[in-house]
Amino acid sequence: VNRFLKKLSKQSVILNYSETPENHLFLDYDAEIVKFIPAVHANTVLDADVLIAFDMNNPSRLRTMEEYFLRSKAVKLVVDHHLDAEDFADYMFIDLDAAASAEIIYTLLKDLSPGLLDKSIAEPLYAGIMTDTGSFRFPRTNADLHRVTAELLELGVDPTYVYNTLYEQSSLGRVHLLGEVLTNLRLAFNGRLSYFTVTLEQLMRNRVKPDETDGFVNQAGAIKGVAATVFFMELPDGVKISFRSKGDLAVNELAKIYGGGGHKNASGARVFGRKLDEVVPDVLVTAGKILFKEEVITNEK
Amino acid sequence: VNRFLKKLSKQSVILNYSETPENHLFLDYDAEIVKFIPAVHANTVLDADVLIAFDMNNPSRLRTMEEYFLRSKAVKLVVDHHLDAEDFADYMFIDLDAAASAEIIYTLLKDLSPGLLDKSIAEPLYAGIMTDTGSFRFPRTNADLHRVTAELLELGVDPTYVYNTLYEQSSLGRVHLLGEVLTNLRLAFNGRLSYFTVTLEQLMRNRVKPDETDGFVNQAGAIKGVAATVFFMELPDGVKISFRSKGDLAVNELAKIYGGGGHKNASGARVFGRKLDEVVPDVLVTAGKILFKEEVITNEK
Repeated sequence: VNRFLKKLSKQSVILNYSETPENHLFLDYDAEIVKFIPAVHANTVLDADVLIAFDMNNPSRLRTMEEYFLRSKAVKLVVDHHLDAEDFADYMFIDLDAAASAEIIYTLLKDLSPGLLDKSIAEPLYAGIMTDTGSFRFPRTNADLHRVTAELLELGVDPTYVYNTLYEQSSLGRVHLLGEVLTNLRLAFNGRLSYFTVTLEQLMRNRVKPDETDGFVNQAGAIKGVAATVFFMELPDGVKISFRSKGDLAVNELAKIYGGGGHKNASGARVFGRKLDEVVPDVLVTAGKILFKEEVITNEK
Repeated sequence: VNRFLKKLSKQSVILNYSETPENHLFLDYDAEIVKFIPAVHANTVLDADVLIAFDMNNPSRLRTMEEYFLRSKAVKLVVDHHLDAEDFADYMFIDLDAAASAEIIYTLLKDLSPGLLDKSIAEPLYAGIMTDTGSFRFPRTNADLHRVTAELLELGVDPTYVYNTLYEQSSLGRVHLLGEVLTNLRLAFNGRLSYFTVTLEQLMRNRVKPDETDGFVNQAGAIKGVAATVFFMELPDGVKISFRSKGDLAVNELAKIYGGGGHKNASGARVFGRKLDEVVPDVLVTAGKILFKEEVITNEK
């Protein structure tokens, strides 16, 4: 969108509350994305004419930017595809049938001025669609999404390059850690739940940063009969828990109990001040009650 | 194609030299695919009016069916997208730009009679496209392919169901074995080659059949800097070797040295009567010469 606005000679800037993950930096080859620092960028937000929140349908998702976004006198837009949007902007572009916000953005930009679209604009939109759909396999992947993707490829996007640059950049330590983790994966509730843990010692010995474990939880769901997966990661101050499920099983109900939230089939929680070997059995017992209406855990080899 | 021909009231049968893999059986819900047995089906092939070979551009790929295919007086068709086709049929439908034979088949059926297409015909074609493109990421994935996919989804295909049924059916033993294998993955040639082994003991202890290791080799290529991967599997009578590479690195040249072959970026070979601990260093030394023009192997932790 920033590249599109620049072609229209608009003054624009991309602010994000967090750092861009390393594997996404290739999309930001002109370093257009700025990490929001209140002391530096507060006035940029407060004095803007227009603010657009992408993929954030609730002001709390703006994190450190929330206060300034809400206080700003700018005309405010929201572009999103998540459920349960809160009305906090002047214009809400919400499409619950869209598999990715990038799909909505593409449609908006094409309606505005199709001639301005080029590879530099198409590439991050393609990356957004590809990552949000798990490579065109998650629910909401439909004919329209594939047609949009066809048009993005026609603008010059190389799908092999984007996939490899995003996903094939593991360190050897990450692969070894994934190996250890899968070796120790366990089932419960007659094979309907899979779960596994990563300890601080494992992270340090393999020299893996916590955010490099993204994607581990998806590997654990590929087992026949498994309907839900829990991934526990030990951190210095507590435990990070990731939940995944298939179909109608709502793991966000489980995440809420531990102060977290998210999607029905993909949620997370962060437990502070508790040890891994205390959190794991606690969550398993709760998972039995909430997801499977069962009190007894069956550990299976 | 069989379902399409039945709608045209043609008498037709699908013969394959091998059993249908278990995870593909859901596509064959009417048990239309028959395993070719010479004593039973030789005359079916010899007396047919028309024979069509799909995804086989060389008669040797027909294996047990080759002899009867070549001897038959039928009108012969070949539909394929692989390089180096041999001319052994009356009509060759070869499209080297197609990412999958299923894409060519869709185009042919749509040209013949678009009104006959339905979900039962679209689902196996979608599965063919999805598996052959690695979920829309391998080279040759282009705008046309996404447009064909859009039309298949409009015929009622559920991409989440097809993906999960094909790929999320691992046994717990397969996941544990994948874990062991990744833990023991090694790099060579300054991180440009990754390699790993599966022993017979590991297969048996985890109760994993050799063909369940499909997909392991792709996991090993996801490492930054890795351009080629070799996967060695010990079998009772020798070693199966799978090769993968990225970009211009031609692993089929390496596979040929061991009596195998395949694609430039995905090949395999089967070595009989030799032990794993003898084959591994042999292949690594050869890989250094052929792929990296290097004589010395650097083993890296």
